[in-house]
Amino acid sequence: MTDPATNMRLKLPLTCFILEIILIVLFGVLVEYDDETDARKWHNLNHTDYDNDFYYRYPSFQDVHVMIFIGFGFLMTFLQRYGFSSVGFNFLIAAFSLQWATLMQGFFHGMHGGKIHIGVESMINADFCTGSVLISFGAVLGKTSPVQLLFMAMFEVTLFAVNEFILLSILGTRDAGGSMTIHTFGAYFGLMVTRVLYRPNLDKSKHKNCSVYHSDLFAMIGTIYLWMFWPSFNSAITAHGDDQHRTAMNTYYSLAACTLSTYAMSSLTAHDGKLDMVHIQNAALAGGVAAGTAGEMMLTPFGSMIVGFLAGIISVLGFKYLSPVLEEKLRIQDTCGVHNLHGMPGVLGAIVGAVTAAVASRDIYGKGLEDVFPLVANETRDASFQGGIQAISLAVTLGIALLGGLLVGFMLKLPIFGAPRDNICFEDSIYWEVPGEEAHHEDQLAAVTTEEATKLNS
Amino acid sequence: MTDPATNMRLKLPLTCFILEIILIVLFGVLVEYDDETDARKWHNLNHTDYDNDFYYRYPSFQDVHVMIFIGFGFLMTFLQRYGFSSVGFNFLIAAFSLQWATLMQGFFHGMHGGKIHIGVESMINADFCTGSVLISFGAVLGKTSPVQLLFMAMFEVTLFAVNEFILLSILGTRDAGGSMTIHTFGAYFGLMVTRVLYRPNLDKSKHKNCSVYHSDLFAMIGTIYLWMFWPSFNSAITAHGDDQHRTAMNTYYSLAACTLSTYAMSSLTAHDGKLDMVHIQNAALAGGVAAGTAGEMMLTPFGSMIVGFLAGIISVLGFKYLSPVLEEKLRIQDTCGVHNLHGMPGVLGAIVGAVTAAVASRDIYGKGLEDVFPLVANETRDASFQGGIQAISLAVTLGIALLGGLLVGFMLKLPIFGAPRDNICFEDSIYWEVPGEEAHHEDQLAAVTTEEATKLNS
Amino acid sequence: MTDPATNMRLKLPLTCFILEIILIVLFGVLVEYDDETDARKWHNLNHTDYDNDFYYRYPSFQDVHVMIFIGFGFLMTFLQRYGFSSVGFNFLIAAFSLQWATLMQGFFHGMHGGKIHIGVESMINADFCTGSVLISFGAVLGKTSPVQLLFMAMFEVTLFAVNEFILLSILGTRDAGGSMTIHTFGAYFGLMVTRVLYRPNLDKSKHKNCSVYHSDLFAMIGTIYLWMFWPSFNSAITAHGDDQHRTAMNTYYSLAACTLSTYAMSSLTAHDGKLDMVHIQNAALAGGVAAGTAGEMMLTPFGSMIVGFLAGIISVLGFKYLSPVLEEKLRIQDTCGVHNLHGMPGVLGAIVGAVTAAVASRDIYGKGLEDVFPLVANETRDASFQGGIQAISLAVTLGIALLGGLLVGFMLKLPIFGAPRDNICFEDSIYWEVPGEEAHHEDQLAAVTTEEATKLNS
Repeated sequence: MTDPATNMRLKLPLTCFILEIILIVLFGVLVEYDDETDARKWHNLNHTDYDNDFYYRYPSFQDVHVMIFIGFGFLMTFLQRYGFSSVGFNFLIAAFSLQWATLMQGFFHGMHGGKIHIGVESMINADFCTGSVLISFGAVLGKTSPVQLLFMAMFEVTLFAVNEFILLSILGTRDAGGSMTIHTFGAYFGLMVTRVLYRPNLDKSKHKNCSVYHSDLFAMIGTIYLWMFWPSFNSAITAHGDDQHRTAMNTYYSLAACTLSTYAMSSLTAHDGKLDMVHIQNAALAGGVAAGTAGEMMLTPFGSMIVGFLAGIISVLGFKYLSPVLEEKLRIQDTCGVHNLHGMPGVLGAIVGAVTAAVASRDIYGKGLEDVFPLVANETRDASFQGGIQAISLAVTLGIALLGGLLVGFMLKLPIFGAPRDNICFEDSIYWEVPGEEAHHEDQLAAVTTEEATKLNS
Repeated sequence: MTDPATNMRLKLPLTCFILEIILIVLFGVLVEYDDETDARKWHNLNHTDYDNDFYYRYPSFQDVHVMIFIGFGFLMTFLQRYGFSSVGFNFLIAAFSLQWATLMQGFFHGMHGGKIHIGVESMINADFCTGSVLISFGAVLGKTSPVQLLFMAMFEVTLFAVNEFILLSILGTRDAGGSMTIHTFGAYFGLMVTRVLYRPNLDKSKHKNCSVYHSDLFAMIGTIYLWMFWPSFNSAITAHGDDQHRTAMNTYYSLAACTLSTYAMSSLTAHDGKLDMVHIQNAALAGGVAAGTAGEMMLTPFGSMIVGFLAGIISVLGFKYLSPVLEEKLRIQDTCGVHNLHGMPGVLGAIVGAVTAAVASRDIYGKGLEDVFPLVANETRDASFQGGIQAISLAVTLGIALLGGLLVGFMLKLPIFGAPRDNICFEDSIYWEVPGEEAHHEDQLAAVTTEEATKLNS
Repeated sequence: MTDPATNMRLKLPLTCFILEIILIVLFGVLVEYDDETDARKWHNLNHTDYDNDFYYRYPSFQDVHVMIFIGFGFLMTFLQRYGFSSVGFNFLIAAFSLQWATLMQGFFHGMHGGKIHIGVESMINADFCTGSVLISFGAVLGKTSPVQLLFMAMFEVTLFAVNEFILLSILGTRDAGGSMTIHTFGAYFGLMVTRVLYRPNLDKSKHKNCSVYHSDLFAMIGTIYLWMFWPSFNSAITAHGDDQHRTAMNTYYSLAACTLSTYAMSSLTAHDGKLDMVHIQNAALAGGVAAGTAGEMMLTPFGSMIVGFLAGIISVLGFKYLSPVLEEKLRIQDTCGVHNLHGMPGVLGAIVGAVTAAVASRDIYGKGLEDVFPLVANETRDASFQGGIQAISLAVTLGIALLGGLLVGFMLKLPIFGAPRDNICFEDSIYWEVPGEEAHHEDQLAAVTTEEATKLNS
């Protein structure tokens, strides 16, 4: 099944090689070890070994890394014949994005004498930015070529870094787990891209846009890893000490509560009370998204559970009632339902963060106020102003995501990128060598046994 | 396939919502951050960041977390048509149990001015308690509704906390890895529940109570994760420093030795020397269970390996010869063979712990005696008395587990819970929307190719 | 399908039991806790808890552990009917090898008063040595009995320890991530074994020596875990502080660059531009192998990315053009293509390490030079001499690996080991109880529905 339009023989190698060579050259010119990874600089500082940030953040980094490559990758294998692409394109665009993000974030977050300094914290941030791209990938899953995805990633990473810079550096927004910067941004960017790439005849591939039994089990690997490691995700770049500890714990309880409300809603909204794998695979994670901004704050386990509980309900309702409307009325074909998992829960998380910030006080946080709200602690602004800034940040994020998605979407419409035609979406064999079917097992055994019998008899 | 008896439309949402709302209210009233997660309290203590318990225990916590959700969840996917339920119900009851366990354990382990203080150690303990519930789940796998499971979890968590309180707080028993509190308790509780729920006509579902090729591979994901992370499990709540280090290492060697004896016994007990996946998936883990109590002690790698070696042998023999007897004579239908993986190895671990405790001395432990046997170190009791207490603790655990399982089993017999009928046990489609079969791949390719040919020709 | 020649009923149990009993006896005689795991010794040292090496290395150890058991195990499940053996034999020989390696490495790395002292660093080293055996397993995959594999493991671990001793202790070679000691050694040892075990009629099993759709997805689990945790692998035993941090980061960027060049080359070398799962599953990992020696050095992210980029290209070219030649001309039947993933990239890594060592200077490393090149720092040798030693070490490794593989290969040809015949290679059912096929799902549903209808009507 070879189609000149989707043949990647020149396009994909050229894109990969050019991008990687640009990356290597830019790294050569711009990137340096930071104080904690450079042998000379670190030893000049006379720190003890355990002061190295590696020991504070590397275990969290690895958990985040698993979420990006296993979590997102396998979550999207639910489609019956798109597993190679789900895991494989996830792998490709994540490997690209984390390099590009290192440069873009390094550029915006402050150069040191013309150089970008990198270490474990920048690696986590690069993985975070990559997560945002993968969320957008979920919206267009099955309908794009790998070259389209690489271009989308390049522009999205850039815009992500711009938005992150505006929020964290200019506005002084707090968003450790990225309810806004990662989830809201990635979701609405992706939704706009898929809106622009709307395919009126996508129902020609409808029979492949669904799962089979084992593909749903592969997807559950992704779900469970995302669920388990979300506490590490939200706490990975918070301040050392109580902040990492508290953030992880808040997220843990938010997710647990979300899981129960997800099961309840999934069963309640089915006419015969049966659970729907799509809800379990996705909505049960909404509690992690929604605890992204406020997770580092003194949200309390009680507050975290309320947030998670609501997030699960909203997310299942989104899958059940909103997604079909978005597709029919707004022409948004959202393959993985990222609006329900990342979009609405991200917005919820932003609002919860704004409210929690607005009621912060030195009474509650003590000297820890400096870690969570430094601008409130040094009295540059008061807590309610911080809350307002958080709310404004949500609007900024939505604006940049939607506008960016619009522009990138139109760019991806160019016919040169090798997108699949409507009747062969959600199909690995366009871009992958797909193995044949297994010989039926009984036949194999029979063949062997017969041969053995012959041999033993002879 | 809709059956009013097993329709969960009202039962499951109601149960989930009521339980979660109770949890949220109780968390609101009773639960507070502890000194290491509260911003104000932590900063008042003037600790350095790396003193925070998060850095000692969070990596172990995440390993335990993986064992609970991936390990147990996927270990039980071996059944051909029960993968959704295995992973999915595991997910549901674990998410519930860890919240409920936080309250129950917090209540029994000591309140602080009427409040339960929580942090990473309580999270590990909550996961441990959840593990016990999942062991019991293994005994009744395929024969219970999710509502039954939630009720079982609620009562089992409560009794687990009572038993744990009696052992650890009243008797001064040592059981860091939970050979008694987790494995023995969970196994015998579950066995008693499944005994009470005995189904004389279960052979109607016999054809589904077995594996297929790929379901066995999914189950191996669970097995391997449990095996790899068991050193983290046993060491997760031991004292900082040498204790965590030693416990992890003892468990590592116990498991390695257990694996070799498991393979040997599996091959030896098959008439044609072929390995049995059931043994490999389960018995190879018995070394972790059996090192649960003595793992933190000066068991030595040598002692650990002997324990693991024996545990593997006992476990395979149990699967091969004891389980059929239990089913036929004692009417215990133990789907996952938890008696062989958790029951007998748990008892072995308790006995090894008692013996190892009885021979402890300041000569062997030095000042470390205070960490492992505080009551022996401060001369409240001598080592042989500690050994006796350990043995008594096993009896107490067995008693509470069996009695508790009896009561809960009878409660679960009430017809209101929506248990599946005998002919549709071990079947996902009772409680889940199950996707249709995949279109045969060659057919798909043919269809696409034909269409392409048409298109290219036109 | 029972064949007396491959019946393991006596051979496998005997081998496992004898090996494990020897291990236990030797552990009893020779092995002791080290200062960080022994209760008395640790408390005598009056260290603070966080000085214990456990907190520096245990998270890395667990990542390495996952690579050994999940990474290697699942990477090899790509074969359609060899998944049980891939994961299961991987499990068995790894559990044996890590115990045997503890003894062999302990013996060569220096005894303490006639005793081998063990802790988390020796556990990592044992896992590393095991990795080398599993690489060789990849070369002979599908063509050997478990008893052959255990014997191969025993001899390979021994020779590994000899080679490692010559390099690290005698020559003063640096090879933290094992480009030479692990990858080059394991690959060329295995290639020589498979050369000696050449099967001219292996094409009788050709139809089984390939993947099916879901087996490729299982293999991707292995690939992704190896890819994610390779930074931990290379940094696991480097010096504390900046060294671990820098090594992890170098590896991270090497792998990312390698992934892009792998995708590019895979698409470029296919006549229709389609990606080949074999390349993605394997070549994308070559960047980790190639950064094994120089990863701890001041290679810079820029240098790491160049190394990874080249490794990916070399590896895909190897799979595409060299492997068929090796098989036809040199009669090397390399099932997993370990020459392309571990052999050539390992040699590349050794060369990169030699060059990077040769240009090391106090100007670049500062006081950190003592950690990375102690013999250069104390002026025992200069950097260019260190570079020369590194190059010689590659030759030594190749020599020992090839000679060792030759001897072990001939030993494994003895007919007593129960190797499968040519027509039943790559087939689980020789050594495993394999479950029957699943009843077709629609049939099941139909059966249940009919029965229900009957019941409801009655």
